[in-house]
Amino acid sequence: MHLGAFLYPTGYHVAGWRHPGAQADAGVNFEHYGELACRAEAAHFDLLFLADSLAIRGDDIEALERTAIRYVAQFEPLTLISGLAARTRRIGLIASASTTYNEPYHIARKFGSLDHISGGRAGWNLITSQNEYEAFNFGMRRHPSHAERYARASEFVDVVQGLWDSWEDDAFLRDKSTGLFFDRTKLHPLRHEGEHFQVRGPLNIPRSPQGAPVLVQAGASEAGRALAARSAELVFCAQNEIHEAKAFYRDMRERLAACGRRDGSLKIMVGVFPYVGRSLAEAEDKYEALQQLVHPVSGLSLLSAQLGGFDLSHVDLDGPLPEIPETEAGQSRRQLLIDMARREELSVRQLYQRIAGGRGHWQLVGTPESICDELEQWFNERASDGFNVMPPYSPAGLYDFIDMVVPELVRRGLFRDSYRGNTLRSHLGLDVPSNRFARR
Amino acid sequence: MHLGAFLYPTGYHVAGWRHPGAQADAGVNFEHYGELACRAEAAHFDLLFLADSLAIRGDDIEALERTAIRYVAQFEPLTLISGLAARTRRIGLIASASTTYNEPYHIARKFGSLDHISGGRAGWNLITSQNEYEAFNFGMRRHPSHAERYARASEFVDVVQGLWDSWEDDAFLRDKSTGLFFDRTKLHPLRHEGEHFQVRGPLNIPRSPQGAPVLVQAGASEAGRALAARSAELVFCAQNEIHEAKAFYRDMRERLAACGRRDGSLKIMVGVFPYVGRSLAEAEDKYEALQQLVHPVSGLSLLSAQLGGFDLSHVDLDGPLPEIPETEAGQSRRQLLIDMARREELSVRQLYQRIAGGRGHWQLVGTPESICDELEQWFNERASDGFNVMPPYSPAGLYDFIDMVVPELVRRGLFRDSYRGNTLRSHLGLDVPSNRFARR
Ligand SMILES: Cc1cc2nc3c(=O)[nH]c(=O)nc-3n(C[C@H](O)[C@H](O)[C@H](O)COP(=O)(O)O)c2cc1C
Ligand SMILES: Cc1cc2nc3c(=O)[nH]c(=O)nc-3n(C[C@H](O)[C@H](O)[C@H](O)COP(=O)(O)O)c2cc1C
Repeated sequence: MHLGAFLYPTGYHVAGWRHPGAQADAGVNFEHYGELACRAEAAHFDLLFLADSLAIRGDDIEALERTAIRYVAQFEPLTLISGLAARTRRIGLIASASTTYNEPYHIARKFGSLDHISGGRAGWNLITSQNEYEAFNFGMRRHPSHAERYARASEFVDVVQGLWDSWEDDAFLRDKSTGLFFDRTKLHPLRHEGEHFQVRGPLNIPRSPQGAPVLVQAGASEAGRALAARSAELVFCAQNEIHEAKAFYRDMRERLAACGRRDGSLKIMVGVFPYVGRSLAEAEDKYEALQQLVHPVSGLSLLSAQLGGFDLSHVDLDGPLPEIPETEAGQSRRQLLIDMARREELSVRQLYQRIAGGRGHWQLVGTPESICDELEQWFNERASDGFNVMPPYSPAGLYDFIDMVVPELVRRGLFRDSYRGNTLRSHLGLDVPSNRFARR
Repeated sequence: MHLGAFLYPTGYHVAGWRHPGAQADAGVNFEHYGELACRAEAAHFDLLFLADSLAIRGDDIEALERTAIRYVAQFEPLTLISGLAARTRRIGLIASASTTYNEPYHIARKFGSLDHISGGRAGWNLITSQNEYEAFNFGMRRHPSHAERYARASEFVDVVQGLWDSWEDDAFLRDKSTGLFFDRTKLHPLRHEGEHFQVRGPLNIPRSPQGAPVLVQAGASEAGRALAARSAELVFCAQNEIHEAKAFYRDMRERLAACGRRDGSLKIMVGVFPYVGRSLAEAEDKYEALQQLVHPVSGLSLLSAQLGGFDLSHVDLDGPLPEIPETEAGQSRRQLLIDMARREELSVRQLYQRIAGGRGHWQLVGTPESICDELEQWFNERASDGFNVMPPYSPAGLYDFIDMVVPELVRRGLFRDSYRGNTLRSHLGLDVPSNRFARR
């Protein structure tokens, strides 16, 4: 079983920062992140993950001024993760970076550098940018449509992977006696001429220790799944129901085969949002304590954002969710919420309370044993290859999981008790890709 | 006197990587950089500096395959410097980033993050990109002209500085009891609508510990000086002659005053390229040993690049430098070389040998005492506020300077024997800028 630590600054719960045990300035506190990373590494997690947004999410000031989860004040993730690379030795390091508001040469180079600096622990979570407000920070009048974003992403990933193969593994001779620094026959400029990008290359950094950083994807729409099946090696997803998770897992494996890729060359990790207590009552208390800190303004605004920006301010809080039109924002999470509200007959208020914590991710409230039972079942029944742990509040939420749940997973033989390798690929059981130009 | 360590991978000399004491894979060796940074910090240097290029420089494969100095294989500097931030505590951290091939929101955010992560030690060397080959990695058919690049740079810096003032220093309340995370009256979206950029803001990171990262500039053309006088706080330059350096220093101070800025709000650091020996003979031996490793193909290609890409392959090596037309590449270095060749009546071969080391920077071959004499004179006569040490080969070239020259500077009372503060601004004696919106 694979485990990731999703390091959301003050925790993933909308009121997490108000918890007495939360580090309220976590978003810009490097020592805080350093300690979390070291603790996750000491527990032999496969990876830590940093999400991103290139703008504050939304512009509803009433809601924003009450939140720490809408990218109001936090580190740029590549800067942060490079610092964390120097503080850790074994744990994998995954950061999100947008294909919509970046250039592929920069992304290839930065993740290539991170892979070298970390000794083969880098992963790139390819995102097409969920937050439409990002457009306004990059000279655009509107966020490109879902289809446009994925079309660009698809070409973007080809360019990045092409750049990562600019040099064969043994291209650099560095022969002081002959004076030859590299072998010119092992240099392959990309010369990409596409619809969105023209990139000559080569990348000016050697091929990375892992062959290439691990490619991660988290979009679950048709376009997202197609892209993942073609190019990703790890998929993060939000699933609440085991049968849905199993269907997703099966679907991804079929798509993988259709792309001619080997089973096992793509891993799937489901987000879990845990409240752990020594007893069920203790866990429920932790849950309730946080729920009571949710301000209605925050809850409603959060729900609106998750529904593609649909304005809910005039809606009856205790009535059912109205019809929500499709927008150009992310589609899979929107549908998940609509389905959940219908299925469980939730009022708007109940729906926002439900997502105030996990925001569509799988919420678990229980003892170490009961939580392990659930994770074990999902893992054994192939609903997931592992779990991305999203603590409700930070740091205590992560430490609860590490101190109580991980030992039980280890005891059951589900999770490692030491690292076997030093790279993210080795933790995940992923092959090192060979350079496309290498003679076999 | 201020001292910087210019960490060019294998050293600044074109044949530096071939030196027996050079770490040939330095460009992608994080431990190597970590050790250099720690040694420079132990010697109380003000700062370390990482240069950048977003492409290999040039496409002459005969020359490229013999070089380690043309950005063939090295870390992306922001990734590297964030890692070094985590390995050091006091030394300033400056990296180059191009205004021609970046977006201001990314640059503001990354350097803002670095300033937080490092506890107030970040500096941004604003470059307009010297290397015209960068264009081809970013979808452009040609590198924009010198004037176009500086016009964009000028607006770029306004946007970045505006974004850095998005939040007043005390904007973040993080008040768990009231539930208010920030004070909305202290949030100031930029809403920039300019010729090159439209950036709404705000930046999604608090104001940085130094108020703003230190702004550095290294262009010496008319446009470069004008930009520096208006916005830079530190200028890196290449000067060989004390009277020219003094004229440059005076010119910058006059421009500063004309911009209504206080004397002392801009520091100037000259690059020095030192060969240090216990005796003059030992220093000269070090110099000669490196010169003999320069391959003619490398030397000629280097000279051509410094002259704006002018093709020298059919020129008589032992004749004088022909007329070199102006190009759109950097102008100040080109003129410096032409003047040097005329003044000293150098042949093409002599000229390339001369620049094979310092490439236009001030070269010093001598004992600790003689080198200190020169630095002291330049400092006392206000030719410079300090020096950027560019070791010919690495790491030994830097250690020679640290072990032999620095103690002598300290003994003479010219350089600090301990840090007084913890930020780059405190080392350089620069004020913390106040937020433009702050009520006085
Ligand atoms: C675990 C996880 C992490 C994600 N991280 C980010 C992120 O950092 N930034 C972002 O803009 N979107 C992020 N997303 C959103 C997805 O990348 C994607 O945009 C979203 O699911 C909508 O795309 P879709 O329409 O293909 O489902 C994340 C999603 C999941 C499940
Ligand atoms: C110490 C020093 C460091 C520099 N670092 C870089 C760099 O990292 N990347 C770059 O493209 N140019 C670099 N330059 C070049 C200048 O930024 C500038 O482009 C060049 O001097 C030409 O500009 P000008 O025409 O205004 O003189 C550097 C120059 C000096 C003196």
